[in-house]
Amino acid sequence: MGRKGEETRGRLLGATQDLIESGGYFGAGVNQVLEASGAPRGSLYFHFPGGKDQLVGESVRRAGHEIGRMVRELAETVPDTAGLVAGVLALLGDRLEASGWRKGCPVATVALEMAAVSDPLQEVCSEVYGSWEETLRDRLAADGHPEPADTAATLLALVEGALLLAKAHRSREPLDRVARRVAVLLQGARR
Amino acid sequence: MGRKGEETRGRLLGATQDLIESGGYFGAGVNQVLEASGAPRGSLYFHFPGGKDQLVGESVRRAGHEIGRMVRELAETVPDTAGLVAGVLALLGDRLEASGWRKGCPVATVALEMAAVSDPLQEVCSEVYGSWEETLRDRLAADGHPEPADTAATLLALVEGALLLAKAHRSREPLDRVARRVAVLLQGARR
Repeated sequence: MGRKGEETRGRLLGATQDLIESGGYFGAGVNQVLEASGAPRGSLYFHFPGGKDQLVGESVRRAGHEIGRMVRELAETVPDTAGLVAGVLALLGDRLEASGWRKGCPVATVALEMAAVSDPLQEVCSEVYGSWEETLRDRLAADGHPEPADTAATLLALVEGALLLAKAHRSREPLDRVARRVAVLLQGARR
Repeated sequence: MGRKGEETRGRLLGATQDLIESGGYFGAGVNQVLEASGAPRGSLYFHFPGGKDQLVGESVRRAGHEIGRMVRELAETVPDTAGLVAGVLALLGDRLEASGWRKGCPVATVALEMAAVSDPLQEVCSEVYGSWEETLRDRLAADGHPEPADTAATLLALVEGALLLAKAHRSREPLDRVARRVAVLLQGARR
């Protein structure tokens, strides 16, 4: 693919990701993606012969990689797992607030709307969540926490739930409350 | 309103709730609601002059009350807050699995899709989450937990996140993992 093709592909994925984060799968209509990206209709089916589901699946995967990279980078600067979780909550909270409470988790809305009815989209969501959980588990294990697999699933649920509640309340309070408790909870569980 | 009117209203709300739980706000088209409920089109606008948004708002509130009642009933049969959370996870997990991974939290999908763009729907979602959190906070306070408000927000985030992950993975594993950790986390935080 030439540079122009790559660039068009990237613009289509970026526009889809943006629309998905605001309104989920059903909020990202093909016409809206075309309008937001400025790409011609033919290019969408050229780059994504599977149509909307392929476009949405690749956008979710791309957003998942971006957040995964952000978490791994953050992991190198914090002293422990509690610091990592608090840092992730702060970063995602900044992003959510700056977007007018639109941009929470780029996977969650598609997962809730589509996981029961689309095998390919369910697989992408499951894969992205699995990769984030793995990053948390590795850090917990490195920090010497007991039951790192169960605790990683618990921390990921905590972050996802806090982001959902922050969006529902249009407020950072749920993120701040969870951030205040997570160090105590993790410390307690080690004893 | 006569008994027939009440019955039609209930059928419209029930059909909407069912469709929302499977596919969210956008998964509950007015035509699908009419088809599933068997109610005539005129009755929808008679009972819900505000149209779809009123119908969805009242359905979310009704589902919120149902789950709230279920949690308060469960609270009377469990020895402590950790038992309550584990019991809620088990009940909601049964419901999710029995529905073919369709029925997670009846509020979450609408909250993620609509909270940023609809003031009335954001208010309903925020109110329902607030009432659930209050039930958890009261129980935590009665059990003598420190920081009951922050801990209640944390536990609600945990339940919501675990349900989301269970739907994404089409598996009870996230619910089971969280249930296994929650007692240790809460116990640790008390010391």
